[in-house]
Amino acid sequence: MGIESKMAGKGDSGQSKQRMKNQMQKMKKWPDLLRRTVWKVGREDPRRVIHSFKVGLSLTLVSLLYLLEPFFKGIGQNAIWAVMTVVVVLEFTAGATLCKGLNRGFGTLLAVSLAFLIEFIPTESDGVFRAIFIGTAVFVVGTVTTYIRFIPYIKKNYDYGVLIFLLTFNLITVSSFRLRNVLKIAHERLYTIAIGCGICLFMSLLVFPIWSGHDLHTSSVSKLEDLAKSIEACVHGYFDDSGDTGDSREELSNDPIYKAVMDSKYTDETLALYASWEPRHSRHCYRFPWQQYVKLGAVLRHFGYTVVAMHGCLETEIQTPKSVRALFRDPSIRLAGEVSKVLRELANSIRHRRHCSPELLSDHLHQALQDLDTALKSQPKLFLSSNNNYANMSSQHAMAADQKPGNKERGVLLSSVKTDTSALLEWKRKRGGEQAKEAAAERTMLRPTLSKMAITSLEFAEALPFAAFASMLVETVARLDLVIEEVDELARNAHFQEFKPDGAYEVVVTAERALQNHLPSHGVE
Amino acid sequence: MGIESKMAGKGDSGQSKQRMKNQMQKMKKWPDLLRRTVWKVGREDPRRVIHSFKVGLSLTLVSLLYLLEPFFKGIGQNAIWAVMTVVVVLEFTAGATLCKGLNRGFGTLLAVSLAFLIEFIPTESDGVFRAIFIGTAVFVVGTVTTYIRFIPYIKKNYDYGVLIFLLTFNLITVSSFRLRNVLKIAHERLYTIAIGCGICLFMSLLVFPIWSGHDLHTSSVSKLEDLAKSIEACVHGYFDDSGDTGDSREELSNDPIYKAVMDSKYTDETLALYASWEPRHSRHCYRFPWQQYVKLGAVLRHFGYTVVAMHGCLETEIQTPKSVRALFRDPSIRLAGEVSKVLRELANSIRHRRHCSPELLSDHLHQALQDLDTALKSQPKLFLSSNNNYANMSSQHAMAADQKPGNKERGVLLSSVKTDTSALLEWKRKRGGEQAKEAAAERTMLRPTLSKMAITSLEFAEALPFAAFASMLVETVARLDLVIEEVDELARNAHFQEFKPDGAYEVVVTAERALQNHLPSHGVE
Repeated sequence: MGIESKMAGKGDSGQSKQRMKNQMQKMKKWPDLLRRTVWKVGREDPRRVIHSFKVGLSLTLVSLLYLLEPFFKGIGQNAIWAVMTVVVVLEFTAGATLCKGLNRGFGTLLAVSLAFLIEFIPTESDGVFRAIFIGTAVFVVGTVTTYIRFIPYIKKNYDYGVLIFLLTFNLITVSSFRLRNVLKIAHERLYTIAIGCGICLFMSLLVFPIWSGHDLHTSSVSKLEDLAKSIEACVHGYFDDSGDTGDSREELSNDPIYKAVMDSKYTDETLALYASWEPRHSRHCYRFPWQQYVKLGAVLRHFGYTVVAMHGCLETEIQTPKSVRALFRDPSIRLAGEVSKVLRELANSIRHRRHCSPELLSDHLHQALQDLDTALKSQPKLFLSSNNNYANMSSQHAMAADQKPGNKERGVLLSSVKTDTSALLEWKRKRGGEQAKEAAAERTMLRPTLSKMAITSLEFAEALPFAAFASMLVETVARLDLVIEEVDELARNAHFQEFKPDGAYEVVVTAERALQNHLPSHGVE
Repeated sequence: MGIESKMAGKGDSGQSKQRMKNQMQKMKKWPDLLRRTVWKVGREDPRRVIHSFKVGLSLTLVSLLYLLEPFFKGIGQNAIWAVMTVVVVLEFTAGATLCKGLNRGFGTLLAVSLAFLIEFIPTESDGVFRAIFIGTAVFVVGTVTTYIRFIPYIKKNYDYGVLIFLLTFNLITVSSFRLRNVLKIAHERLYTIAIGCGICLFMSLLVFPIWSGHDLHTSSVSKLEDLAKSIEACVHGYFDDSGDTGDSREELSNDPIYKAVMDSKYTDETLALYASWEPRHSRHCYRFPWQQYVKLGAVLRHFGYTVVAMHGCLETEIQTPKSVRALFRDPSIRLAGEVSKVLRELANSIRHRRHCSPELLSDHLHQALQDLDTALKSQPKLFLSSNNNYANMSSQHAMAADQKPGNKERGVLLSSVKTDTSALLEWKRKRGGEQAKEAAAERTMLRPTLSKMAITSLEFAEALPFAAFASMLVETVARLDLVIEEVDELARNAHFQEFKPDGAYEVVVTAERALQNHLPSHGVE
């Protein structure tokens, strides 16, 4: 027994030694992990390092108010409010700082004036009555203000301002019970907060400013590009499938490319909200259409649902035989390539802040749609929907005989697609010489109609399990119209520069770097 | 000319009168609009009213520290910090309040101790050196702290704590330049913040507490129910289509039912984060699996993508003829109904905190799947994928001849589905007498396999434009497995009560109200 317990004790100590060793190894890894995390945070977005230094600098500056004799004499003990304001108000982007700073400023101003009023009412009363009055005022204002914060419009835009109003109001009202120079406190609080906000605004607007609007802009570009990549990845994944669904199931958890697009709602709305507080990025003083970016984001998510459904076709248990898929491989990949091309062109047009090319919906796209249609129809054993009374037919021969008029009809369909394409060509030739401005208006009138015609003329009567995938692929073309509409509207509302037909593109590309570096300073023009 | 300008002037004044009238009418409507908005905010969630009163009450309580003589003597001028703490820390849910309160407390504690250290270093130096030292410390700590806030883990859990650390550190360090009794300030700040946090925690945990965990729980239930409703609405919309796509396009902007599910990511994560700060809702002191709710939310969104794609089939330009759709109307609606039933049963099991019924994947679901399969196959003119070398076939007769072996194979398939169903029945019979605990483990082993078998045995070789819709509908069944898996895992991790086969359900329903009212007070057990 004694030996056993000794053995056990030894085993325990051996185990605990092992555990300690593991712990030590973990501890040794820990600084390495920390270093890598810290490095990664900075590498992901170097502006974070800049922002950190800006905060450090602002705090040092505002501390001078307290540390330097002449400033301190002017402001006094309450200089500490300015320090607090800088800590709380200075945010990563200029828009967020402006939003918080102005909210804090106006909240304080309002509270000071209200507290001032309340201050004057019970001036000749005694202590107990005064305490009851103050307590009641605090209760009522606290309750009402908190309730007001639930109103969606207030919550979205002025939540922080209302909070600061409540804070300052309580501060002044409660202090007024014991201090007779409350007016001085109120003034000082107002001054110091104004100084703090001033330093924050100076830092965020003039020293390496980081614009929410710019982030929103680039995120829209990268969303379009992500979708383009996703479609291509889906189609290639579908046709170059190795047969195991395990991998793609894993991919679901491993963040597919489109995931960033699908989860962008909250980020978009926050960025747009802050961007709306930022000074306009332009010499012409129009209101920059940040809400249009949010709308574009919504349409892109709507587009993304189709991509997710296509990705779902890769994961599903019901798989079309590979040999069947192979028949449609080339047209599908071509169509996906064309859709991606359009998305990339849209991304480029937003990136360079210009209208998109009128040749956006190219013949290639229509050709690819038509090819897919032809490929689907070229399979002799496919089902024709044009005659709807097949339900009561049972003989295979009747069906075979029935196929012939179908063939004829197919000819008609193909020629109608041809007509569409030639109409497209004619329309393009016609509008070649016209002014770009007129074209922009005409474009939005004509484009959806044209591509809709092309799609509806493809009767996907012949279908197969692959039909779901093909149908989703064609659906992307349909939804592409919505995306183009939104991008067009964005280009018009944001007064993007006109599209220049040829040669201009290279100039724009070389100018991009200059533009991007120049961009932030637009805010102060 | 004079008359003209007079006329114009008159017109102008007429217009401006009209405008003023409009303005006045708008002004008259404004209070009405405000009243309705205020009313709506309270009606949507009456807990908002309660929370508002709680804030008012807490503020009054904390003001007493300043207003009542004995308290004021003990704490002094700095009682105002406690008021500020209450304003800032008291949030809508208990979890959010705890998160903020503890962050504020520990941030202050850490800052006080660090400032204390710094305080002791340059004790014998002169003013200028001291100012430089303080300035440097503020700069370095400000920069490093701001950078640390970008680390995702810190940002998610301790952002507010780090902010308060920075605030307090600056406050004490900067104040120490002029005040010699900084230690007293630090102590007082610590005390007053502790008192403020204490009042907040008392109010949020003991007086009509509002739990984030409870909100997360009920939102999961309503998400499941929303999806059930959406599927039914989609299928009915698809088959009872009036033919115009305009309406459904509008519906897109009019917030379809599933929208709340698709946009729930941010809300879910926030609620789960706050819930993780809340005391466990149980006598057994296990960690409640809030992250499992987030995972369930992700799977529900994944499921939702299929519903969105189905909704997309309603909107698309390529529509299957109504007569074709009509053929598959009944089996499709039945399948959708069965899927909805399973989702509703899952919602109920979560709502009542019990394991879901082992009869969840009923024969009805399999029967409905099989019926849809039969309906799809019963169309004589459909394409069979079982033979893959049709590409080089062109004669209609060859195809007709080819159909016969297909027919045979169909018989095999149907019988294999039968086998599945009988296997299911047998399995159920077998495990009827077994213990529920064992069954739960076995259930997760068997269920996915069973439904996968049933799905894969349905070869959707025969397809049509409708195939995309049908394929998505069947995909919902496949994804249902993932949802069931997650709900099962949730039930196991959260130690939900066992499922009681019959009769127990009514008891649970009647007990629900008591349970729901009782729920919040669990937190203090």
